[in-house]
Amino acid sequence: MVELDFEKTNGLIPAIAQDAETGEVLMLAYMNEAAFNETLSSGKATYYSRSRNTLWKKGETSGHVQHVREIRVDCDHDTVLLKVEQVGGAACHKGYKSCFFKIVENNEYKIAEERVFDPEKVYK
Amino acid sequence: MVELDFEKTNGLIPAIAQDAETGEVLMLAYMNEAAFNETLSSGKATYYSRSRNTLWKKGETSGHVQHVREIRVDCDHDTVLLKVEQVGGAACHKGYKSCFFKIVENNEYKIAEERVFDPEKVYK
Repeated sequence: MVELDFEKTNGLIPAIAQDAETGEVLMLAYMNEAAFNETLSSGKATYYSRSRNTLWKKGETSGHVQHVREIRVDCDHDTVLLKVEQVGGAACHKGYKSCFFKIVENNEYKIAEERVFDPEKVYK
Repeated sequence: MVELDFEKTNGLIPAIAQDAETGEVLMLAYMNEAAFNETLSSGKATYYSRSRNTLWKKGETSGHVQHVREIRVDCDHDTVLLKVEQVGGAACHKGYKSCFFKIVENNEYKIAEERVFDPEKVYK
């Protein structure tokens, strides 16, 4: 039976979303137990928004839903890895495929990717 | 200038280690500012151990060091992604290449990988 350790981190555990095809790491967000259960039952990535204090069905506003192809759990049962198909080709609210679009080089950020969409057009 | 948001999560931010060659997600651990700076300066992944409350130079005991090939930061500056070369071929203290060796299927865990090493021989 699947039991995650939500207690250690006050009810929220990190969840990594990875592109199921390319292996690219798209984003990291948090899940409470309800978000994990909703992800399992709906097959769509659902997180817990720490800023809005509510369940966050990824793609609700942007349409950029994540269809979950596989769910993995780490050895300590306190982190989730989702292999997803990212609708719209971009996970990041800033318009990039991956939230990890900044490389650290010589104590500066270097933008490593091109934008997929213009956030101002998607989030009206 | 690189500035991470350590405040939001009480000084510790999640850091994902990904195999630089294959893209496999190896593990997730936490970094405080000192761990991040040590990773930058040494080129070897250094985390903060929440159980031991101290800096954790990955591989100190096992020899399974992670040489950092690239450091990325997410859009909110509160998560780190390391692309690493994993010495010894295994990141997990349970002897698997990845800590994410369990797939969730029908509310059960299914082991998805073979062990690379025997933990009892490595951690004496």
